[in-house]
Amino acid sequence: MATLIQPRVLKGFRDFMPDAEIRRSILIQKLTNAFRSYGFVPIDTPVLEYSEILLRKSNGETEKQVFRFQDNGKRDVALRFDLTVPFARFVAEHKDALYFPFKRYHISKVWRGEKPQAGRYREFVQCDFDTVGPDTAAADFEILSLMKHALSAIGVNDVTIKMSHRGVFNAFLTKLQLTDKSEDILRIVDKLAKIGEKEVKDQLNLITQSEEKSSQILTYIAGSNSFESTLDLMANMAGAEYDSENQPANEAAIAVQRLQEIRDMMIASGIADSYILDPSITRGLDYYTGVVYETFLNQLPSIGSVCSGGRYDNLAGLYMKEKIPGVGSSIGLDRLIAGLEQLGLAKTKGSFLDVEIYNLNKKLAAHYQGIASKLRTKGINVEVFTDNKNMKQQFKLTTAKSVPWGILIEFADSEKNVMTLRNLQTREQFESITIEEVAKIILDAKKG
Amino acid sequence: MATLIQPRVLKGFRDFMPDAEIRRSILIQKLTNAFRSYGFVPIDTPVLEYSEILLRKSNGETEKQVFRFQDNGKRDVALRFDLTVPFARFVAEHKDALYFPFKRYHISKVWRGEKPQAGRYREFVQCDFDTVGPDTAAADFEILSLMKHALSAIGVNDVTIKMSHRGVFNAFLTKLQLTDKSEDILRIVDKLAKIGEKEVKDQLNLITQSEEKSSQILTYIAGSNSFESTLDLMANMAGAEYDSENQPANEAAIAVQRLQEIRDMMIASGIADSYILDPSITRGLDYYTGVVYETFLNQLPSIGSVCSGGRYDNLAGLYMKEKIPGVGSSIGLDRLIAGLEQLGLAKTKGSFLDVEIYNLNKKLAAHYQGIASKLRTKGINVEVFTDNKNMKQQFKLTTAKSVPWGILIEFADSEKNVMTLRNLQTREQFESITIEEVAKIILDAKKG
Repeated sequence: MATLIQPRVLKGFRDFMPDAEIRRSILIQKLTNAFRSYGFVPIDTPVLEYSEILLRKSNGETEKQVFRFQDNGKRDVALRFDLTVPFARFVAEHKDALYFPFKRYHISKVWRGEKPQAGRYREFVQCDFDTVGPDTAAADFEILSLMKHALSAIGVNDVTIKMSHRGVFNAFLTKLQLTDKSEDILRIVDKLAKIGEKEVKDQLNLITQSEEKSSQILTYIAGSNSFESTLDLMANMAGAEYDSENQPANEAAIAVQRLQEIRDMMIASGIADSYILDPSITRGLDYYTGVVYETFLNQLPSIGSVCSGGRYDNLAGLYMKEKIPGVGSSIGLDRLIAGLEQLGLAKTKGSFLDVEIYNLNKKLAAHYQGIASKLRTKGINVEVFTDNKNMKQQFKLTTAKSVPWGILIEFADSEKNVMTLRNLQTREQFESITIEEVAKIILDAKKG
Repeated sequence: MATLIQPRVLKGFRDFMPDAEIRRSILIQKLTNAFRSYGFVPIDTPVLEYSEILLRKSNGETEKQVFRFQDNGKRDVALRFDLTVPFARFVAEHKDALYFPFKRYHISKVWRGEKPQAGRYREFVQCDFDTVGPDTAAADFEILSLMKHALSAIGVNDVTIKMSHRGVFNAFLTKLQLTDKSEDILRIVDKLAKIGEKEVKDQLNLITQSEEKSSQILTYIAGSNSFESTLDLMANMAGAEYDSENQPANEAAIAVQRLQEIRDMMIASGIADSYILDPSITRGLDYYTGVVYETFLNQLPSIGSVCSGGRYDNLAGLYMKEKIPGVGSSIGLDRLIAGLEQLGLAKTKGSFLDVEIYNLNKKLAAHYQGIASKLRTKGINVEVFTDNKNMKQQFKLTTAKSVPWGILIEFADSEKNVMTLRNLQTREQFESITIEEVAKIILDAKKG
């Protein structure tokens, strides 16, 4: 006999045991329902693509992290490291077959050869949703509203969504004559939560060479105490101008109006309280051009944003001449699950079963299967204990699998076509009842 | 500006457009519900594993087809080419943390660098379900019953499930003193449907060097005209023996009894008609030792089996000393979908929407979002047309997305808090109705 191979997974990769996979699949199902309820549709793309497609835009850091190799046909290929680049390629390739605005969600794995550390894996699930096509306030609002709705669908209600607008910030920097330094400034401002105001100011001084300008930037990113007053502050500092009919007369004013339109929709939908206008949100060096946003767990802000995104003006510029703008967001599902675990909010479940039929008598094996089959037609998830373990072991297993109900059928019961139903939590028993009565009790409890 | 990159996917790989992905995700959801209703639980494993783990058991053919490479840490890794080998590794690695019988389903992608041809792709979805742990008739039955149930759940009812038992066949070959030639014989018998009886006989003659033995094999695999009479034939030809109390006294008789027990459960569950005992089913050279089965679409047998499997006695022998037996089955989802397409049974759907709110008046953008938000809280999937297309274009798009209902709100309606609901198929209209009335009509239609 050959030597045994040590069963193990690669560093940074994980098996999901039933408990963990049940939890993840329930979350994914709820997110999926949320996306569908807003009219988003799923797509799928290959996990493996030409490296040229995936890596053209990337910097050296990404390239080092990517799983890249030559396939058997000598093609230079790589595993996707996000869902954004494949989406851009997809839209460019299929634009003539798609309806715009095109609203898609994609929940799938991506791979990065990062140094494994707590909460960082080389294989993880991303969950992206984007609307591409015409640039409208309604599309921006829809993504922001869906972020809240999707998180709420998975029981995550205690969140703060911070939003701002990259266009207003750019106009503000232009007014300060700092456009050429915007990359550095964005990088510094993005670190505000991490390094604090003092350090941000010191770093800004080095770049702006002007205490006055740095202090104006700090005033801008500090915002004010309400959405409305912060929006006024942003408009003033960015130099928004209006014509005689109070219509926007420059880029800054157009961007400010966009934020106001989104705000009006939030109020009409009764969700305005969940959003904070926070001009310090810029999403760093990302390719956003319009609204930007990040989402924090109020009880665990330290893990960073669990759902972020923004509006961009050129999704697929690497693959097509036409500019397709869009707006989107991404949930870091594995990071979010880790956060929920830390907060004790991650519910686990050992199975999807409603009821277990215990194995009391080997001779009744076929009878048990017949009962199970009938219960399933009534929409009940039922398992027959197929093994000949003793009752203590059988009860232990149903507890481990968190099955709520048990059915006990002795030989005499089988002849009368009745059974005992036991609530496995309260140990309450219903004896000598029919299958119809059993089904009614289980289904009523499931509803309630 | 840099040259544009041609957007394209690798040969043998596919994008899934929304229609196709909606269809696939609905099928997967229904299969998932079927697995859950029998108490099966999901697991997940990495798509990338050590080549040593994945390839030890494989023959040269598999090795040529696998996507294998060195990662950045110089590890020899490969993309999984099936879900069975990772499952064996998973069970060996986590056996102390699992409950037995362990019933898992796994629906996920696998990769094989096969020569792409019609219906053959390099990236495709497999759907496996197995019960590992004690070897019982109930576990065998459960898988067979679930095959029927799962296919029925996705609307595939016109199928024939052919089953047999590898143990009985082995006993039969032993009786013919052909054990040492069983590999060749299995390979030939497995081709019966493809090459016909005459060619099978010629090939068998070359192996058995005996017309008599070849003709006995043909008699065996031809079976008889009912489950019971075929089982009798198999028992006789394999030399089943019983003791004075009519209990099985040799391997052949034990295997025959197993088939009888499974049959009894099928009758008790009212599904016996769906299964044919067909001794020509052997699953070729696969590692099965007990029941084996294949499933054919009655209207399209030519595409081969869409759901096959069997019982094996040693799942994880490469990774652990202990023998863990099991029984399982696998649905070739992409092949099945291709088959349904050919039969015109593959339903497509452009979205999951119940209703679209048309964009009649730009000034009502916030009002529309408020209505949408309220409808979603009632469990209705609703989209607001965020674009300023004309009505003809808007209607065209909702038709393409197969949305059943439309809501039209003019400015005067918004002031009275009413709207018009239109059935987009029949064009029937309900005018000046409230949001509660709208919700009732849509939800009632959805239930019906």
